[in-house]
Amino acid sequence: MHSPTPAGARPALTFDIAPPDASLAEALRNKIDRKTKPLGALGRLEALALQLGLVQQTLAPQLNKPHILVCAGDHGAANAGISAYPQEVTWQMVENFLAGGAAINVFARANGIGLVVADAGVNHDFGPRENLVDAKVGLRGTANYLEGPAMSAEQCDLAMLRGAQIVADIHARGCNVVGFGEMGIGNTASASLITHFLAGIPLEDCVGRGTGLDDAGVARKLELLRQAAALYRGDHTPLSVLAQVGGFEIARLAGGMLAAAERKMLLLIDGFIVTSALLVAATLHPATLQYCVFSHRSQERGHRLQLEHLGARPLLDMDLRLGEGTGAALAWPLVRAACTFLNEMASFESAGVSEHLAPSPPESGERVGERG
Amino acid sequence: MHSPTPAGARPALTFDIAPPDASLAEALRNKIDRKTKPLGALGRLEALALQLGLVQQTLAPQLNKPHILVCAGDHGAANAGISAYPQEVTWQMVENFLAGGAAINVFARANGIGLVVADAGVNHDFGPRENLVDAKVGLRGTANYLEGPAMSAEQCDLAMLRGAQIVADIHARGCNVVGFGEMGIGNTASASLITHFLAGIPLEDCVGRGTGLDDAGVARKLELLRQAAALYRGDHTPLSVLAQVGGFEIARLAGGMLAAAERKMLLLIDGFIVTSALLVAATLHPATLQYCVFSHRSQERGHRLQLEHLGARPLLDMDLRLGEGTGAALAWPLVRAACTFLNEMASFESAGVSEHLAPSPPESGERVGERG
Repeated sequence: MHSPTPAGARPALTFDIAPPDASLAEALRNKIDRKTKPLGALGRLEALALQLGLVQQTLAPQLNKPHILVCAGDHGAANAGISAYPQEVTWQMVENFLAGGAAINVFARANGIGLVVADAGVNHDFGPRENLVDAKVGLRGTANYLEGPAMSAEQCDLAMLRGAQIVADIHARGCNVVGFGEMGIGNTASASLITHFLAGIPLEDCVGRGTGLDDAGVARKLELLRQAAALYRGDHTPLSVLAQVGGFEIARLAGGMLAAAERKMLLLIDGFIVTSALLVAATLHPATLQYCVFSHRSQERGHRLQLEHLGARPLLDMDLRLGEGTGAALAWPLVRAACTFLNEMASFESAGVSEHLAPSPPESGERVGERG
Repeated sequence: MHSPTPAGARPALTFDIAPPDASLAEALRNKIDRKTKPLGALGRLEALALQLGLVQQTLAPQLNKPHILVCAGDHGAANAGISAYPQEVTWQMVENFLAGGAAINVFARANGIGLVVADAGVNHDFGPRENLVDAKVGLRGTANYLEGPAMSAEQCDLAMLRGAQIVADIHARGCNVVGFGEMGIGNTASASLITHFLAGIPLEDCVGRGTGLDDAGVARKLELLRQAAALYRGDHTPLSVLAQVGGFEIARLAGGMLAAAERKMLLLIDGFIVTSALLVAATLHPATLQYCVFSHRSQERGHRLQLEHLGARPLLDMDLRLGEGTGAALAWPLVRAACTFLNEMASFESAGVSEHLAPSPPESGERVGERG
C-alpha cells in the first residue's frame, strides 16, 4: 500500500508483490544436499526449506514470532438455511477465542504461536476488549446476497485495507510468518460462491456440509446458492465477486494476505474459507502464491478442488473441517522443522560422515561382506 | 518381563500385554463431542484423542516426557552391495547424534523430545560416552545372513531384553510416550526380509532403494536378499525370523516396543525399519498395536505395504525416507495436540456456545435471513 488515499476517494488497494528471485535456488539446493542424510531423504521438508530460503533470499532463513490472524464476521444469508448453526454462534465463538477455550487457542498455545482475533463485522457489540482487534467497518455483517450484493465496492476495499493494516501491524512487531483463520456462521457458503466464480468450478462441486448439514441441508444450501449466483451481474473480477457474495472476514483475510506477501512474509493457508480469500488475493497478484504454505487438506469437499486449481499439495491431511486457522496451527511445527534442519543440521564435511558410494554397486556377488 | 532368568537358561522373553479396556470409549467420545466445534470437525485428531484416553484409561490423558529411542547397529551383509553407503557411516552417524547434528537431533530439540541413543552393536568402539547407552551384547554387528543366521537365538533374546530394559529405564524416569528410531547401514535389507517372512509379502515388493540405490543397485539387492531368504530353514515364528535375517538394532526395538506396551506407554512408530521391528513385536503380542501411533508413511516402498498389512493410516505423508525416528519426531506435535484439545478445549456448556440446529433445516425459502 503505497498510495495515500485522497479524502473522499475510493481507498487505494495497491500492493507491490514480486515473486522471490530464484537465483539463490542452486545454492540452497546444494546446502540441503550436503546435510547428513541421503539425497532427498527429507522429502517435502526439503522443498519447504528451499521455499523458505527463496522467500527470505538467504541460505539461513529465520521464522520469527509466528502469528495466526483469525477474522470473524457475520453473513446476511446465515439464517436462510445455509448453516447447521445459528448466527449467534459467531459472537459466542469470538468470546470463546478471547477466553482461550477454542481449538485454535489450544493449538496456538501448544505450538508457540501468537493469536490475533479481529472482529471483522460480527453481529454483536463486544465493547472495548483487550485481545480483540476492532476491525468493523461500521457494520454488523454483510447484507444478504440472496437479495443483492453482500457489500458495496467501497466497503469491500475498506475491509481489505483493514486486513492489510492488521498484518502490517503484526509485521511491525517482528513477525515474518502469519497464518490465517476465520470464524463466521455461513461462511462456507460465501467460500463456495467465490470458488465457483474465481476458479471456474461448478457450484455443485463447491458446496459441502460446512459445520454439519445433512443431505437435505446440503441440497437446500446448493439451491439457495444457485439463487445467489443467478443474481450476480458483475464482471467476474475478484473484487466484484468478493463484494457480491463474500464476507467481511474473507475480505480482511484477502487484504491481509496481500500485505503479507508484499512484506515477503511466509503465509500459512488454512482450509476452504481461507483458500477462497487466497483465490481473491492470488487472482489479483499471482506472485502471492509463492509466499504460501498450504497447511492441510480440509474434509470440506470444495477445498480439494481449490487446491487442485492452485496446483498445491498441502502438508497435512487429517480430515479436519473446523476452520479458525487450526490446520495452519497444526502444520506450523513442520514449517519450523524445515527451517531448523536447514540451519542446524550438520553437513557431511562438518560431521565427518562418509559420502554415498559410487552409483552402481558391484555387479558380481563376490564382494560378500564379512561379519560386521 | 516377570520371570527371573535362571542362571544359564535362555533369558525369559515374557511380556504381559493386554489390550486397553474399551469401556471408557463412550465417555471419551461424549467428552470429545461436547467440545466447541462441529461434531467430528477435528477429524483424525479425535480418533487419536480417543486412543490416548483408552491407552491411559482416563478422560484426561497426560503425555509426559516424550522420548525417542534410536538404536544403532551394524549388519554383516552391509558390504555385500545392499546399501548405497559404506558401513562406517553407521558409527559416523552415531557420532553425529552425540554431537547433536543429525536430523533427529534437530527435530527432537525443536519439538521438545528427549533423545536416547543406544549402541546396539555398531562396528566401532565408542568408549564410555555420556549420552550413549552401551547396549552391545558383545558383538560389533550381526553375522552375514548371506552365509547363515544373523544371530543366535540367545543373542536375539538378549538383544530384545536389552531394548526392553532401556525402555523400562526411560519409563522409570516418568516418560509415558516413546518413539522409536534406528540407524544401521544395510538395515532396510533386514527389514525387507522380515516383512517378507512375517507379513507374507512377496520379497520383490519389499525391496526398495534404501538410502539411495539406483535401479541396478535395487536389482542386485533383491538378488542378494533372495539368496538370503533361500537359506532360511526355520519355523517362520517372529523370533526365528528375527534371528535369521534381523539386525541387533531391530531386535532392541522390538523388545523396547513390548516393554512399552506392557507399561501402557504410547508408542510412536517411525518408518520401514521400525515397522519391521513392530511386525516382530505385534506378531508375538497383537495387543501391542493398540498402543501404537503410526507417525508417517515413508517413501520406502515396503513401508506402504507394511501399513496396509497392519491396517494402519499414518499421520504424516511427507515423502520422508531418512529413518532415525525423524517421522516420529515430526508427528509428535500432532499427538500432543490431540491430548491438549481433549484436556483444554472448552465445552459448549462451559463456553456458553449454542448448539447445532435441528438436523433438517427449513425446507421452504421463506426464512431468509436479514442483514446481519
